[in-house]
Amino acid sequence: MTPSLGDLPSEEFRRFAHQLVDRVADYLEQIEKYPVLPDVAPGDIRTQLPSLPPTLGESMETILADVDRIILPGMTHWNHPNFFAYFSITGSGPGILGELLSAAFNINGMLWKTCPSATELEQVTLDWLRQMLGLPKEFWGIIYDTASISTLHAIAAAREQLMDLQIREQGLAGRAEVPRLRLYTSEQAHSSVDKAAITLGIGLAGVRKIPVDEGFRMQPKALAQAIAEDRRQGWRPFCVVATVGTTSTTSIDPVPEIAEICEREGLWLHVDGAYGGMAAVVPEMRHVLAGCDRADSMVTNPHKWLFVPVDLSAFYTRKPEILRRAFSLVPEYLRTSQDHQVENLMDYGVQLGRRFRALKLWFVLRYFGWEGIAARIRKHIQLAQDFAAWIDADPNFERMAPTPFSTICFRAHPPHMDEEEALNHLNERLLEAINGTHEVFLSHTRLHNRYVLRLAIGNLRTEEKHVRRAWVIIREKLKEVIPGIR
Amino acid sequence: MTPSLGDLPSEEFRRFAHQLVDRVADYLEQIEKYPVLPDVAPGDIRTQLPSLPPTLGESMETILADVDRIILPGMTHWNHPNFFAYFSITGSGPGILGELLSAAFNINGMLWKTCPSATELEQVTLDWLRQMLGLPKEFWGIIYDTASISTLHAIAAAREQLMDLQIREQGLAGRAEVPRLRLYTSEQAHSSVDKAAITLGIGLAGVRKIPVDEGFRMQPKALAQAIAEDRRQGWRPFCVVATVGTTSTTSIDPVPEIAEICEREGLWLHVDGAYGGMAAVVPEMRHVLAGCDRADSMVTNPHKWLFVPVDLSAFYTRKPEILRRAFSLVPEYLRTSQDHQVENLMDYGVQLGRRFRALKLWFVLRYFGWEGIAARIRKHIQLAQDFAAWIDADPNFERMAPTPFSTICFRAHPPHMDEEEALNHLNERLLEAINGTHEVFLSHTRLHNRYVLRLAIGNLRTEEKHVRRAWVIIREKLKEVIPGIR
Repeated sequence: MTPSLGDLPSEEFRRFAHQLVDRVADYLEQIEKYPVLPDVAPGDIRTQLPSLPPTLGESMETILADVDRIILPGMTHWNHPNFFAYFSITGSGPGILGELLSAAFNINGMLWKTCPSATELEQVTLDWLRQMLGLPKEFWGIIYDTASISTLHAIAAAREQLMDLQIREQGLAGRAEVPRLRLYTSEQAHSSVDKAAITLGIGLAGVRKIPVDEGFRMQPKALAQAIAEDRRQGWRPFCVVATVGTTSTTSIDPVPEIAEICEREGLWLHVDGAYGGMAAVVPEMRHVLAGCDRADSMVTNPHKWLFVPVDLSAFYTRKPEILRRAFSLVPEYLRTSQDHQVENLMDYGVQLGRRFRALKLWFVLRYFGWEGIAARIRKHIQLAQDFAAWIDADPNFERMAPTPFSTICFRAHPPHMDEEEALNHLNERLLEAINGTHEVFLSHTRLHNRYVLRLAIGNLRTEEKHVRRAWVIIREKLKEVIPGIR
Repeated sequence: MTPSLGDLPSEEFRRFAHQLVDRVADYLEQIEKYPVLPDVAPGDIRTQLPSLPPTLGESMETILADVDRIILPGMTHWNHPNFFAYFSITGSGPGILGELLSAAFNINGMLWKTCPSATELEQVTLDWLRQMLGLPKEFWGIIYDTASISTLHAIAAAREQLMDLQIREQGLAGRAEVPRLRLYTSEQAHSSVDKAAITLGIGLAGVRKIPVDEGFRMQPKALAQAIAEDRRQGWRPFCVVATVGTTSTTSIDPVPEIAEICEREGLWLHVDGAYGGMAAVVPEMRHVLAGCDRADSMVTNPHKWLFVPVDLSAFYTRKPEILRRAFSLVPEYLRTSQDHQVENLMDYGVQLGRRFRALKLWFVLRYFGWEGIAARIRKHIQLAQDFAAWIDADPNFERMAPTPFSTICFRAHPPHMDEEEALNHLNERLLEAINGTHEVFLSHTRLHNRYVLRLAIGNLRTEEKHVRRAWVIIREKLKEVIPGIR
């Protein structure tokens, strides 16, 4: 029983933790000295690492030095203010500190008893966030890891609501009494809806994609027609997933009309507000969640636009008892004497293990405060509106979708160049040239088969000068790609 | 654009991060001054927190002070060396530092391009761990959050392997050509197998629980008979989940015999080694994974017995292409020019978001080294064998299951007290008295309807003196519960 069989000695932990904190602070302070996209080819990092596991322990010095030498040069820096791809996010300082603390506490909050503070802080912080979003009091909240898992649980609850089918007990396979099940979402919905349908045994054919209008919003009339048609053909409709802030264009489905249809048809309405939902903490943006008070469930991700490090997804439902009915399974070894008077959060999902995620949310909500958070989200939206106006004013560019939040869809479209295939090719080359600078990182999508560039703003370090610089690079690169352009 | 709309200012981050590091170091150093179980009633933490969200930002001082004032008193301290409940775990110093770094980097490793270092470090560290476990070269690894999710993916792949049924495309419901599907696992298997079956639309009825022998191991003969019987009755067997280290008793299913049956019957074999699998890094314990080289997939959790903070579950399969076929869905906005030459890890699962979990695994494997890790696990096993011997030697106690790892199942059974109901009652009161000290925390299970106490060793801070102290408390409390006992 020599002490060398314990943990890293306390004085060493202290020393290296202080060192690491300074490295992290330096890294975040000097983030702009790094290229946002690394200049590496597949395998470049792997080949620098031994293929055999280390036999003997190494010093923390060596390990931390290798972070600088091997890991950092191969990183895409999501912290960089010029990261405009996908959805731009921020793991803020308070969030990082909260995460450090949860790693140190290292609890598993599966039961109330296994860490009362974790369960109760989760309940309180999610209720705070509910209020900030203007959601009704009946909305009960729980933290999952990702929006994909939140949406999986939503659709699982919708499926469980088909009480007569006894799906939890009997499953879906080989049962003559179970009809084909149908779930509706728009053509613009996130791939996690499809993945949930695959997982839950609904299948891709069980997902009917509803067409969108010119603003990329689900068409309620088409939804109603699809449901009626499906019913006539023997399908059993059971769920609609609407989106507030789709991934390609951040369009907002008309939730009030969709809720109307769901109520009439008795379908579970889930709202995917993973990105866009968070905007509702800004009082004048609360309208983006119009109708969501009528939803059965909703997801929004503090790790997307609430400055909390990944992962933390907030899930709300007015019917937690259905979720619980689907997933509660309590083996003897997890029974406690408090079971009748507490919420054991493991009862509401697939995962038994639950980190203390609420801590980082608590730190972020308190450090910035509701007004501070709203001001920051408001600023991101303003920066995006400015950029949208620049696009609109430039004859060589055009906006490809409305900009309700902080993400702009646009493309180069020089005058007299109207062949769609040529435009696609041009924009593909343009994006390559832009990202090839390693100075900014934008991503793309395809709308009506048109290749479209996306610029997303959501990083606390992104200032007007960064957006201006991106705009300069975009125009410069267009000139390089089309040498003759003015 | 005032700077006050950014993150916590750098100098503040630095100051509070250093403060927090000292608090964390103090906390871990002085962990024994805390009661392992808190003395709180449901609602005690919640009532100390405001019910309204904070409008204005607060200082980090206030927030950190509230951690001490509100959170710490309501915590179950999984770091405490006297935490012997469930499976005892450790978030080691190197693991905590790795987690701090991933929170700071805050990347999403969904694609190779979105952080090449994250994808490649995950590939390398999982291959190191594979070698340490003695698993075959064909085993391809990926990190998920929890063993529940790993097992969900294993069973989803098993389901996808039923190619003729086209489950990904067509689902399971309302299809006359799909038979009822059956999955086999032992009576002692973890509840996550049932939860996966519910989720995947197999249903609880689709899980056939195979009886165990006197050592709580699945009976291969009973498995073979069940499969034959099911086939005769029109079920389609598709998967077997064997366990190396069940949750109640840590029994080891006879994987070689089960693998034989699976190969003969064409069933996917998944091995749940969430806890027990890790013991195979100790050379003389490698036998616990006998037969696992013939499995289709296997899970083992570095956050259980490899000193990595939660969450990090390592999943291996020899058929990653089937997992990929089930879950790969690439929307346009996630296409990259490297797609043909890299692994985009989002293609292999439900979750799109992927934190940089490999960092903490890398830190732990390198800091302790293979030999250092093996020595620590070996010590835990030795401590458990010592405790088992004390139980065996005491006429007032009896061991209730073999002890192949570091978890002991036992109960008080004073001479001449043979009424099972009375024994159950006695042991329930005994556990209450033990945990009521708040000095040690043990959990329980039920075996053959007998109430059984469990003492699990897996914390790097647990020394012989802690186990001895637990043994003293257990015997003292027995004397209190049965005043007359000698």
